[in-house]
Amino acid sequence: MTDDNKTPLLDKISAIKDLRRIPESDLQRLAAELRHETIRAVAKTGGHLGAGLGVVELTVALHYVFNTPDDRLIWDVGHQAYPHKILTGRRDRIETLRQRDGLSGFTKRDESEFDPFGAGHSSTSISAGLGMAVASDLQSTPRNVIAVIGDGAMSAGMAYEAMNNAGASESRLIVILNDNDMSISQPVGAMSSYLSRLITSEPFHSIRDLVREVTSKFPAEIERTARRAKDVARDLIGVNSVFSQLGFMHIGPLDGHDVNQLLPILKNLRDTHTNGPVLLHVVTEKGHGHPFKDQSHEKYHAVPKFDIITGTQQKSAGNVPNYTSVFANSLIKAAEADSKIVAITAAMPSGTGLDKLKAKFPSRVFDVGIAEQHAVTFAAGMASEGMKPFCALYSTFLQRGYDQLIHDVCLQNLPVRFAIDRAGVVGADGATHAGIYDVAYLSCLPNMVIMCPSDEAELIHMVATSVAYDDGPSALRYPRGEGVGCELPDEAEILPIGKGRMIREGDDIAILSLGTRLTDCLAAADAMAVQGVNVAVADARFAKPLDTDLLAHLATNYRKLVIVEENSPGGFSAHVMTYLANHGLLDTGLQVRLMTLPDIYIEHDSQAGQLALAGIDAAGIERMLTSLSSASASGKASTL
Amino acid sequence: MTDDNKTPLLDKISAIKDLRRIPESDLQRLAAELRHETIRAVAKTGGHLGAGLGVVELTVALHYVFNTPDDRLIWDVGHQAYPHKILTGRRDRIETLRQRDGLSGFTKRDESEFDPFGAGHSSTSISAGLGMAVASDLQSTPRNVIAVIGDGAMSAGMAYEAMNNAGASESRLIVILNDNDMSISQPVGAMSSYLSRLITSEPFHSIRDLVREVTSKFPAEIERTARRAKDVARDLIGVNSVFSQLGFMHIGPLDGHDVNQLLPILKNLRDTHTNGPVLLHVVTEKGHGHPFKDQSHEKYHAVPKFDIITGTQQKSAGNVPNYTSVFANSLIKAAEADSKIVAITAAMPSGTGLDKLKAKFPSRVFDVGIAEQHAVTFAAGMASEGMKPFCALYSTFLQRGYDQLIHDVCLQNLPVRFAIDRAGVVGADGATHAGIYDVAYLSCLPNMVIMCPSDEAELIHMVATSVAYDDGPSALRYPRGEGVGCELPDEAEILPIGKGRMIREGDDIAILSLGTRLTDCLAAADAMAVQGVNVAVADARFAKPLDTDLLAHLATNYRKLVIVEENSPGGFSAHVMTYLANHGLLDTGLQVRLMTLPDIYIEHDSQAGQLALAGIDAAGIERMLTSLSSASASGKASTL
Repeated sequence: MTDDNKTPLLDKISAIKDLRRIPESDLQRLAAELRHETIRAVAKTGGHLGAGLGVVELTVALHYVFNTPDDRLIWDVGHQAYPHKILTGRRDRIETLRQRDGLSGFTKRDESEFDPFGAGHSSTSISAGLGMAVASDLQSTPRNVIAVIGDGAMSAGMAYEAMNNAGASESRLIVILNDNDMSISQPVGAMSSYLSRLITSEPFHSIRDLVREVTSKFPAEIERTARRAKDVARDLIGVNSVFSQLGFMHIGPLDGHDVNQLLPILKNLRDTHTNGPVLLHVVTEKGHGHPFKDQSHEKYHAVPKFDIITGTQQKSAGNVPNYTSVFANSLIKAAEADSKIVAITAAMPSGTGLDKLKAKFPSRVFDVGIAEQHAVTFAAGMASEGMKPFCALYSTFLQRGYDQLIHDVCLQNLPVRFAIDRAGVVGADGATHAGIYDVAYLSCLPNMVIMCPSDEAELIHMVATSVAYDDGPSALRYPRGEGVGCELPDEAEILPIGKGRMIREGDDIAILSLGTRLTDCLAAADAMAVQGVNVAVADARFAKPLDTDLLAHLATNYRKLVIVEENSPGGFSAHVMTYLANHGLLDTGLQVRLMTLPDIYIEHDSQAGQLALAGIDAAGIERMLTSLSSASASGKASTL
Repeated sequence: MTDDNKTPLLDKISAIKDLRRIPESDLQRLAAELRHETIRAVAKTGGHLGAGLGVVELTVALHYVFNTPDDRLIWDVGHQAYPHKILTGRRDRIETLRQRDGLSGFTKRDESEFDPFGAGHSSTSISAGLGMAVASDLQSTPRNVIAVIGDGAMSAGMAYEAMNNAGASESRLIVILNDNDMSISQPVGAMSSYLSRLITSEPFHSIRDLVREVTSKFPAEIERTARRAKDVARDLIGVNSVFSQLGFMHIGPLDGHDVNQLLPILKNLRDTHTNGPVLLHVVTEKGHGHPFKDQSHEKYHAVPKFDIITGTQQKSAGNVPNYTSVFANSLIKAAEADSKIVAITAAMPSGTGLDKLKAKFPSRVFDVGIAEQHAVTFAAGMASEGMKPFCALYSTFLQRGYDQLIHDVCLQNLPVRFAIDRAGVVGADGATHAGIYDVAYLSCLPNMVIMCPSDEAELIHMVATSVAYDDGPSALRYPRGEGVGCELPDEAEILPIGKGRMIREGDDIAILSLGTRLTDCLAAADAMAVQGVNVAVADARFAKPLDTDLLAHLATNYRKLVIVEENSPGGFSAHVMTYLANHGLLDTGLQVRLMTLPDIYIEHDSQAGQLALAGIDAAGIERMLTSLSSASASGKASTL
């Protein structure tokens, strides 16, 4: 970091009109200030840094040229929108990023009129933008709609579906392909190679040189030259490109860090009112201008807080392993013993821990890119040939592969193992990334086995169990973050499918816990014990199939039952109720209370804060136990 | 139909080895016989006819050249696989197609070793095939894997994700793009136009002519010529095509009805052991050779039984409108009054009834192709600009847009209206197309409103209600087939959100019905009344939000409650149980029984047969009522 941390140009901008008063010649300098401000903010808050730094010049140029917010600017995967937020009236709150009641780490409609569409998941912007462009046509309110999408996001089928539809449409939509050749991890897939070939082809240099030369020497000529540059682009690149074959006017590639290249082309797009979609291909460097950029692409995608002078990142102090690494280590051990084990990730090799497995078994780990639909059915294809695929996805992203999970895996009863990471609340990533529906949307499917470890030792046993279970699909569901710090077993144990365990018996009230809420359930039970109330605690282990013996035990030996899970309503506890009702186990007045996440979206906060808000932390469970313990069993049945 | 209905060549084939003994010169004739046999079978059973007729020659050539079943042949959307079934040991059962205990209308792993992967939904074959090809590499058991996919299926993002991954892979996969320029309805989207341009380009004629000339004159030269043809294809078409840019060796287009064109190329592919994927582009005509082919593409996609001599189709006799047309007519009426109403279909304009709306308002109906992910977010984009989009999808296909529904619609609380057709069991299409999870996978989402009309009059009211409800997302869920024949209202009524209705009060037992099961609930209640048991019946109308007043009424005024829904476990009734438990309404020993579809996959049968199997028809509900009515309320609560 240099000492040059003053931001005189940026300080002048309190509203977007202030930006548009700055002379064009100062914009490159403004971009440098905006980059500095972004780094300064993320150093304090942590968050996604590289993506935003790559689009600083683009952010300045787009807001300068287009009439936002009336023109609609959509950032695909909003984590690149920190500079956008700084420039659009949120500079004073930028240090609240991703914190409770602070700015979201993504674009968000509620937050600003400059965020016309929220985006936490990738590859949605072209679809949303086309919808807006069509609406603008139907409402006869002409405006520009610009969708900025990264090359990594282009591996998702959704982006292709939208391109395919837009390419056949007369509506005007500007798609900016921000090609940083990096995405979250190393780029994968054929589209990525294709883009690399485009960049290294001759025309790119021609246009770049052409624009540079003219803008430096003949400012008055810029617009005419830009037209010429566009023609060059169309003639030399566009016509045979994938994008032009799909119906887009294809312009570029341009240097996305050079405002002088961006401005004339963007103005030209703004002022030329042709029908149909345009794709502008800009090349940027993710993390451009960051002084402490390290070698790991994926690690660099999002960063914890760091010292802006030394670059030192704040690390967690604990020695407790996180669930992801426990999963990865267990899977490595299993893969050493069983050559049929393979693993699939959708652009999250490090986030899922599969990078470690890949280091050991490079030919047995597959990164398919941001392509969850394909990931699931690709795994199903391997399972149909007798392999043992582990499809490792975050819970929130498995939503993208839901139909494939139903139709290709469960219906055919193929033994695909889903390793569902980031299940439950996920903290600072907030509502878009919450992994809180999977128990509900998986439990309703025949053939599915769902394991929910209560701690990292249980996860080790359950990885072994899922390796051993080859009769159909199964899922392992574990949360973001560190385990509870329990002792790890030397030997993994294969658990009986669909069997839970009683942790302790009690007098009158029992808790049935699913997954890692167990620790808080035990803490609440301990607190009750101090008050002389002995609460039984059971660990369901499996959300499906239900342990009907355990349910019968709880229903017949206790008068009150509390069921706890870190999932939306409609999940494990709802299925338990269905079973209990249909087997007459509720007819006698068993008092049951279901503690799930509430039926609302929970915004970004710490995971502990989110669980407290939901009332399913130790304190919330204790409150429930206290309230139940003081209530007497009602006698309505006897009075009717 | 000619008199020439003998099938001497086909009659010789009882096992696949018999096919491979037939001289090449007889294969075109065999294909004609196979086409005849397919028409004959579908005339008796009804079913998907056009797709199969288009691939008769391809079916013969593929099984002739490749070593199936050891080589894996995957038919994308298995409804084109009737000729394949006839040729692979299922000819004697072909007249049981789509009937209870008969052959499935799609490929099915359980049914034959020649069906390595089941497919009812489209666009899965490249993913599955790549999984198999990779497994073959890892297991060192070389084999060919061939995926046959239609051009319509290529609009789905999943196919692109798989192409993108396969294009960067070293595994050998043969993708046959069966380009019938038709898909289910008229082809839409940019890819479709692109394929048309490829077909009409010069090289196609060159290759075709080349192959024809040589195969007719110099059989010994065929293989060498095929290589030359391939080279021509690569040089003249392949290099700049979308497919080659994505890493595929791209061959074609070939005439898919000419066995003499197909054989040399297929043999060449079989015998050339290069790495990486190949795309063979064949051009066919859907319904080729069918004597009664009519003008409507989509209507022709699947047919009812018909007279093989006259072509007359068996029509349903009733005058009762089906739910689809009631929905369409209601929407047209609403759209006439409100210009903000737009509608989106994913390749099902006729199936969803939106073709009628499009005829009236061509600019307000959007067919995005088989692209449910995009359909949902495209609708969200329009809703974000104040439009009132109706996204009309079959329940089973909405699964493809689940993440978009969560992330782009519900989380942002955008008023997209989902018109969910074919909800519940769907009859002959069987388990792959069952629309029986939506209540479960939607009810767990905050902001969602879910309306379930109990008859076609209710559907009319609910269309009006969904037009009026602009505060967030909503869904309308209605079944396949005809309504109950009730009188239709002159004026549509806007219903209060989240309010059900008591149909009749009773003595001791109440039924809470969701959706069109109401008719059978009433029939069961009537049957009980004859026996002197007065059963109350309520219609929930909304699966979400719950009518808490109605639930309290039922729970406090009745001792026994039966909840009935045509959906998987974990849906409406599970959420009712959650509510009742958490509000103490079960504590007094209310006896509740939940009648849902069972936790198994229900195979093809009539809808009535499927509901009877599930036990949620009138007879099944009556059995439950009888059993509950004879049981006394237990008094456990009072004895503890």
